[in-house]
Amino acid sequence: MDIDICDILGIKYPIIQGAMAWVATAELSSAVSNAGGLGILSPVTTKGLVKEIKIMKGLTKKPFGVNIPIMNPNSDEIVKIVIEEGIPIVTTSVGDPNRFTSIFKKEGIKVIHVVTNIKHAKRAEDAGVDAVVAMGVEAGGHIGKEEITTSVLVQNIVNNVKIPVIAAGGIVNSNNFSSVLALGAEGVQCGTRFIATEECIAHDNYKRAIINAESDSTEVIARGIFPARVIKNGFYEWFEALTREEKVDKSLFDINFARSAILDGDIKNGAIWAGQNVGMIKKVIKVKDVIKEMMNR
Amino acid sequence: MDIDICDILGIKYPIIQGAMAWVATAELSSAVSNAGGLGILSPVTTKGLVKEIKIMKGLTKKPFGVNIPIMNPNSDEIVKIVIEEGIPIVTTSVGDPNRFTSIFKKEGIKVIHVVTNIKHAKRAEDAGVDAVVAMGVEAGGHIGKEEITTSVLVQNIVNNVKIPVIAAGGIVNSNNFSSVLALGAEGVQCGTRFIATEECIAHDNYKRAIINAESDSTEVIARGIFPARVIKNGFYEWFEALTREEKVDKSLFDINFARSAILDGDIKNGAIWAGQNVGMIKKVIKVKDVIKEMMNR
Repeated sequence: MDIDICDILGIKYPIIQGAMAWVATAELSSAVSNAGGLGILSPVTTKGLVKEIKIMKGLTKKPFGVNIPIMNPNSDEIVKIVIEEGIPIVTTSVGDPNRFTSIFKKEGIKVIHVVTNIKHAKRAEDAGVDAVVAMGVEAGGHIGKEEITTSVLVQNIVNNVKIPVIAAGGIVNSNNFSSVLALGAEGVQCGTRFIATEECIAHDNYKRAIINAESDSTEVIARGIFPARVIKNGFYEWFEALTREEKVDKSLFDINFARSAILDGDIKNGAIWAGQNVGMIKKVIKVKDVIKEMMNR
Repeated sequence: MDIDICDILGIKYPIIQGAMAWVATAELSSAVSNAGGLGILSPVTTKGLVKEIKIMKGLTKKPFGVNIPIMNPNSDEIVKIVIEEGIPIVTTSVGDPNRFTSIFKKEGIKVIHVVTNIKHAKRAEDAGVDAVVAMGVEAGGHIGKEEITTSVLVQNIVNNVKIPVIAAGGIVNSNNFSSVLALGAEGVQCGTRFIATEECIAHDNYKRAIINAESDSTEVIARGIFPARVIKNGFYEWFEALTREEKVDKSLFDINFARSAILDGDIKNGAIWAGQNVGMIKKVIKVKDVIKEMMNR
């Protein structure tokens, strides 16, 4: 490999923390950056984002990033904040990378684009991004419609682009890391594993739901519309009934379903976003221990 | 690892050829066994099986196996044939491993049971099988209802049983092999990769459909009923329409849909069974070159 992802991003370990809605706050992201990985803040609100960036700067001197869902109605505003605040790295997702990439590159900001198929990986490379995250069907929360597994996706994208590929979806420990390195990935992005950490502000019920789940505990809802992976519970049953009655449409695309599980701890009626590899997450541990185990290969 | 899967099976390389209906004939299976892997015959009919075993014995002196779908109406008869013919190894699938395992063990026959979830892996271990094949959602043809990906399934099963675990689903080259070894697998079982070989009797149209397919070319049909992975074509469209009209039931579980694509080459209206990693299969090659590449790690 010509370019090393750690050199590009100025980090020690090629481990990126996914920008999970509600919980990718300064507490979690600074712990990841301080441990040598790359913390990424999630902009649930623009006002909240400015506040989180300020807290983050007080908690770490290491590089960190901000996630920008490109189709988010506030994305122009988020881009403005990122530039004003001198954020060195962004991850972009859900939308055309051509929209913002050249603006970021002009400002010297590194861009990592999240993709779920080969076509979008090539488009991101053409748009000039520095790396792509190849996010497979194992991931928690919203996933790609194609439902390509992480290992298949990583290998095929590595085969089709020249920029570094970061694997996401089902990566919870050092063996998963080794496994995707064998397929040509240069790094990993982890979501669910970082929820079950001491530093994450997620509700204890949510963390416990992850710890107690097994490899067959998750399912995909809203297939073909806005697919998302959740742990099966009351919310899942309700959603499945709506699906059978053909009552699912875009109006049900509401991250507040997840908020109630994630922040309020309503793991009966809330959407418990989690990746398929939850069965391998057995304890709430410190962020630095997640990263230490993952690099111990 | 205490027990080596190659020692158990008396083979050189831990590469098993999946018992694909219609095409796991003596031509293909003997080539796999002769190249150091383990060829497995598929018993589409019991009469056909006896014939294939005789041809097989003429083509190889190496160990080979027979697959027994336990719930197959002819499974008792197949078991009888296997014992009479002195077959050293069986793979069993689709059914309770307790039904035949002790009979095989008494005869000194090695048993590998194919599973798609942890519970069935534990049941197989308790039944006394020698190894399990952990078959993930990437596999072609019929797959498990749980839709657990190969990497998640392998890692979780390795974590839950003491017997060797063989990975299946999406394994087409040496990088895939390295990838599952990192998760604790001891070997691999490959299906789709062996279809696109010179020795396989599959119709050229079927082989070409595999060669031309990409990582987003396959889809799962009959979810929750008898899920199977196929390459999207006219058959797929027809089946999806039936699904939308809620007209899919067990009566549509008919391997003749696959036969017309596999043997007759009707890749428009037949079910083109193929694994999700077809995008990495670019050429029809010799069986020995599949195995050589896979061991070249």
